[in-house]
Amino acid sequence: MIIMRSNASEEQIASVVHEVEINGLRAHISRGEERTVIGAIGDGRPVNKDPFLYLAGVDRVVPITRPFKLASREFSPENSTFPLDGVKIGGDEVVIIAGPCSVESREQILETAYAVAEAGAHALRGGAFKPRTSPYSFQGMGEEGLELLAEARQATGLPIITEVIAPDQVALVASYADVLQIGARNMQNYSLLHAAGASMHPVLLKRGMSATVEELLMAAEYILSHGNRRVILCERGIRTFETSTRNTTDINAIPVLKSLTHLPVILDPSHSIGNWEFVTAIARAGIAAGADGLIIEVHPNPSEALSDGGQSLKPERFADLVNQVQQIARAIGRSVAPANHKQTGPVQL
Amino acid sequence: MIIMRSNASEEQIASVVHEVEINGLRAHISRGEERTVIGAIGDGRPVNKDPFLYLAGVDRVVPITRPFKLASREFSPENSTFPLDGVKIGGDEVVIIAGPCSVESREQILETAYAVAEAGAHALRGGAFKPRTSPYSFQGMGEEGLELLAEARQATGLPIITEVIAPDQVALVASYADVLQIGARNMQNYSLLHAAGASMHPVLLKRGMSATVEELLMAAEYILSHGNRRVILCERGIRTFETSTRNTTDINAIPVLKSLTHLPVILDPSHSIGNWEFVTAIARAGIAAGADGLIIEVHPNPSEALSDGGQSLKPERFADLVNQVQQIARAIGRSVAPANHKQTGPVQL
Amino acid sequence: MIIMRSNASEEQIASVVHEVEINGLRAHISRGEERTVIGAIGDGRPVNKDPFLYLAGVDRVVPITRPFKLASREFSPENSTFPLDGVKIGGDEVVIIAGPCSVESREQILETAYAVAEAGAHALRGGAFKPRTSPYSFQGMGEEGLELLAEARQATGLPIITEVIAPDQVALVASYADVLQIGARNMQNYSLLHAAGASMHPVLLKRGMSATVEELLMAAEYILSHGNRRVILCERGIRTFETSTRNTTDINAIPVLKSLTHLPVILDPSHSIGNWEFVTAIARAGIAAGADGLIIEVHPNPSEALSDGGQSLKPERFADLVNQVQQIARAIGRSVAPANHKQTGPVQL
Amino acid sequence: MIIMRSNASEEQIASVVHEVEINGLRAHISRGEERTVIGAIGDGRPVNKDPFLYLAGVDRVVPITRPFKLASREFSPENSTFPLDGVKIGGDEVVIIAGPCSVESREQILETAYAVAEAGAHALRGGAFKPRTSPYSFQGMGEEGLELLAEARQATGLPIITEVIAPDQVALVASYADVLQIGARNMQNYSLLHAAGASMHPVLLKRGMSATVEELLMAAEYILSHGNRRVILCERGIRTFETSTRNTTDINAIPVLKSLTHLPVILDPSHSIGNWEFVTAIARAGIAAGADGLIIEVHPNPSEALSDGGQSLKPERFADLVNQVQQIARAIGRSVAPANHKQTGPVQL
Repeated sequence: MIIMRSNASEEQIASVVHEVEINGLRAHISRGEERTVIGAIGDGRPVNKDPFLYLAGVDRVVPITRPFKLASREFSPENSTFPLDGVKIGGDEVVIIAGPCSVESREQILETAYAVAEAGAHALRGGAFKPRTSPYSFQGMGEEGLELLAEARQATGLPIITEVIAPDQVALVASYADVLQIGARNMQNYSLLHAAGASMHPVLLKRGMSATVEELLMAAEYILSHGNRRVILCERGIRTFETSTRNTTDINAIPVLKSLTHLPVILDPSHSIGNWEFVTAIARAGIAAGADGLIIEVHPNPSEALSDGGQSLKPERFADLVNQVQQIARAIGRSVAPANHKQTGPVQL
Repeated sequence: MIIMRSNASEEQIASVVHEVEINGLRAHISRGEERTVIGAIGDGRPVNKDPFLYLAGVDRVVPITRPFKLASREFSPENSTFPLDGVKIGGDEVVIIAGPCSVESREQILETAYAVAEAGAHALRGGAFKPRTSPYSFQGMGEEGLELLAEARQATGLPIITEVIAPDQVALVASYADVLQIGARNMQNYSLLHAAGASMHPVLLKRGMSATVEELLMAAEYILSHGNRRVILCERGIRTFETSTRNTTDINAIPVLKSLTHLPVILDPSHSIGNWEFVTAIARAGIAAGADGLIIEVHPNPSEALSDGGQSLKPERFADLVNQVQQIARAIGRSVAPANHKQTGPVQL
Repeated sequence: MIIMRSNASEEQIASVVHEVEINGLRAHISRGEERTVIGAIGDGRPVNKDPFLYLAGVDRVVPITRPFKLASREFSPENSTFPLDGVKIGGDEVVIIAGPCSVESREQILETAYAVAEAGAHALRGGAFKPRTSPYSFQGMGEEGLELLAEARQATGLPIITEVIAPDQVALVASYADVLQIGARNMQNYSLLHAAGASMHPVLLKRGMSATVEELLMAAEYILSHGNRRVILCERGIRTFETSTRNTTDINAIPVLKSLTHLPVILDPSHSIGNWEFVTAIARAGIAAGADGLIIEVHPNPSEALSDGGQSLKPERFADLVNQVQQIARAIGRSVAPANHKQTGPVQL
Repeated sequence: MIIMRSNASEEQIASVVHEVEINGLRAHISRGEERTVIGAIGDGRPVNKDPFLYLAGVDRVVPITRPFKLASREFSPENSTFPLDGVKIGGDEVVIIAGPCSVESREQILETAYAVAEAGAHALRGGAFKPRTSPYSFQGMGEEGLELLAEARQATGLPIITEVIAPDQVALVASYADVLQIGARNMQNYSLLHAAGASMHPVLLKRGMSATVEELLMAAEYILSHGNRRVILCERGIRTFETSTRNTTDINAIPVLKSLTHLPVILDPSHSIGNWEFVTAIARAGIAAGADGLIIEVHPNPSEALSDGGQSLKPERFADLVNQVQQIARAIGRSVAPANHKQTGPVQL
């Protein structure tokens, strides 16, 4: 990885690419907002970095042994952070995203948004486009759902996270959402990863249900390679033989990811255990293991939810979860970020 | 499922939909080339079929208890078949698709196409758009690859099967390919399934590496629900704890699928075991278990393949595989379909 | 389940058994130290409990719907606890067991025992009989190892936990050890479970690497059915497709087990993640999820350990783990039990 | 591995062991019926074999790179075979073992024995000691079951295969059975493996439900290291996320095992798919993949079986399976071994 100075010219970049190629390597250019990074990709054999060190415009050269490059700790030993409406993602403070599985109605999303804001959530989740196993299941409210999310943001000040399931939807969803979610089923949908990367919008990338930790990082690499550095990784349970829970929370993945990558890592205990009774225990475990945040399903009336009711918390239980997580965060020298959304007056439901 | 007569009018369809809705159910209309099928979707409680039986234009009413409907044996007790360039897919005869993982050059694809045609293959596979774990790996030749496949078809008469990885590529790929392949990583990429379904082009749908048999059938249902009935299911190995092979061939899935669905079921032994040495043994096992066909990776020079060389057979080994599979097919009262592609003269490589 | 009064006579027991049998059920008698429990086993159909309620000597009748009976919360809504050398297992306080994978020498086990006692451990683990994948690997020191463990107990006051791998070894191991460990590979070694149950010695039962939560509870049921109620369950990681860690810690199993059973549940983070760097994070997560204790591999010189060195902590890191776990325990309203072993003077190493 | 001549003296063996030890290696002596093999076990670094080549009594020296030694193809490039009552196990001919899961009554086992003998089976299986998940399930008839098996052998001439579940049972079971079966749950019950190895009785070793191929071979190594060379390996399905079948048949394991080891490899389709409807298809697949035999559950009245009824074939379906397997065997140049048991007259049921 050849990291260019922030003021490097196109000419300087071109001459580095030229040098890469005459060394028998392939150049992969990733243009970030601040600086350009040039990957020199070979066949795995060690490469002498001297020829690149003294070229004009080069800041530094970092040899990277992992198959993921821009995502690796070798590339960036410091944790990556970015602000989301005043909350810092990936920093010392723990961030909590909450909301219903699906946006179902104006009343439902506003009621939930107020409740989770009140309880201390930092962002609102809610699906407008739903990837469902069956074509006959509720597929989400579509753009109408996005509009309701925008209204909920305006009402509560909470930034919005919502899923995008097709490359040609990215622009539409990005026009409403603060963070694009890429779901577990689409973790290796590379055209979607490319589109989300190119959008330069923040992305929450969920681990596929049978993806290895390395494959998750390789998927992030697709987004990062567009120069889009605002990527949040999310463990959401893997598929195993165990049938007493919906998935098996891979709690090991939290410290392993934190050692391999500089990207923020959060946990989705709702999907990873799949039963509301146990969500709080697993949320605590995730923060104790070092996660930078949580994403939690909350529904005002879980038994009537159109999807995933069984794993959704009622607002009062969610408030209790936030309190418990706060205790755990303090026990390891962190804390839950203060709720900093602008408290607007109540809207009419 | 309410199956309309082939000559049912729009008015008759509308009146059935109306009847569905006044019974408190949701109507799902699937317009096939021959006839329209209307699904009456409820909450799982038994529905009286009498009100529908005597409506004008209704052919028959089939109650379906499985979550997959159009894919189920209950919907169509007979095996579904369709012709592909003179070979019948899903019939008594076993069909063999072969070719390289990726199209790499004109010489490579033509040489492979001639070799597999000569050995008895019925269709040519080859990837032009490749979904790769790493963004730095070879991503396929793109449209140029499609053109080379078309040339190979013209030269050998073999129909072409190639992967499509994004919904907005479907039209392009369908303009070259005889069959669209949806790969394992995209089995639950629902926007792609919808696009492939709407194209009315034949689709080869590979099982996701951690998808259950039921989820595979639900994915097929997305395609079928567009009235596109030409869907081939492909077992390609699942992800387990075993590390001595690339994946674990779920041979059980072959007879289980054949009992649950009327769709053709084939096996990809190359990906499911991942080592050329063992591909022939697993190909034999697949046919012995009741598969309707095979898809095999063949490369003229596996050690120089840009992807999946370790699991690719050389042409002469592939010819031996065809012979062995023929013996197994005969042992169970089937046979490998005769090679019926038009033998054109050799082209200049 | 028919629970007899503690002073029920043999005659009263016999008459209950008779009543069970004339109701077409099979009687399973489990004689505990305090009282006898009679299981009335049928074919799953509901049984009227009235005929049993008024028989002499019957305390109460508990209908149990789970396949595990004596292990179920229905049988005993309160947590089961038992004292181990002054520490209460299964109570509000968290218990920590520590020591090397294998006893390797007098010096090694004494040095480790002193160090873990000093750091706050409540019991010493160490294998004398080792179940090893290869017959050519170090198989443990055998009885000599047991003698060294006894010496370490005398020196430090720590009770001893060590593995037993054959039914005919139970008496020997029980003559040295305070708790018998049954390892993951033997979780369904029913002759060993019977022998451990009959010994009436406390048992630490590790979950098999591909055992479901229900199968773990059924294995415990074998021990409990001998009237031996002192059983500790231990989650130690399950086998999945993920290869970046030795096993996948099934953190979900902690709250799920706590809801299904009254037995104490502990976590072995050393085996479940298999890399010392991450053991402390997973230990924290286990306590945060509700585990009643931990079992941790500690070795004075991990790089020279004869087994499992890569996942063993040095004593100073273990002391840090105890401190961190204490913080987490307090965050959820529990605490690590005080070290109450008798501090004897140093022995000569 | 240092393979001694068959007439090597104790003195010669001792001098080889001495030479091993002065080379800094550990000697592992395995005394077979024909010859003694001395393993020289080091730390994995290459060892010069010259010092051993010219010692008296040494036949040859085979360097073995696999963790399993005596089980490896490197140790014995030729397939191992052994006779079982006139049928050759591991040879060109396919061998079929059949019978009920459990011996339930004299009538049941005799009726089944006659039926499977008539249909062409070469050995009779039937459990007398059953390892059951629940202590409340039928645990087998014990020694009475062994006596009934012996009577069935006398009546039909079929050799007997039955499970042994504890080391101290080995002598008893071996006094009745021709082959000792070690079940999946006990594959890593090392005290049982040692006892079975020391008995010098043939052993059928089933793969654990989450054991890798390598672990299966390491378990076999425990038996082989006693000089007991008559070991049959059995694939019986592994545990995966798929729930439409009881287990996932690892068909890949058949050719992989055949390439790694010289031991006979058979398949148990009954347990590996767990549904009688599909047993014949998977049996065909196993033979097509190269298995040396099958073990099939057959019960005269599956719906009344005390265990595993759902996966048991009726005798007439088993006869059809034998015919179908014969066709597959011939298709790959093998055949089902002729039934050579002595046809005795019928006994009174």
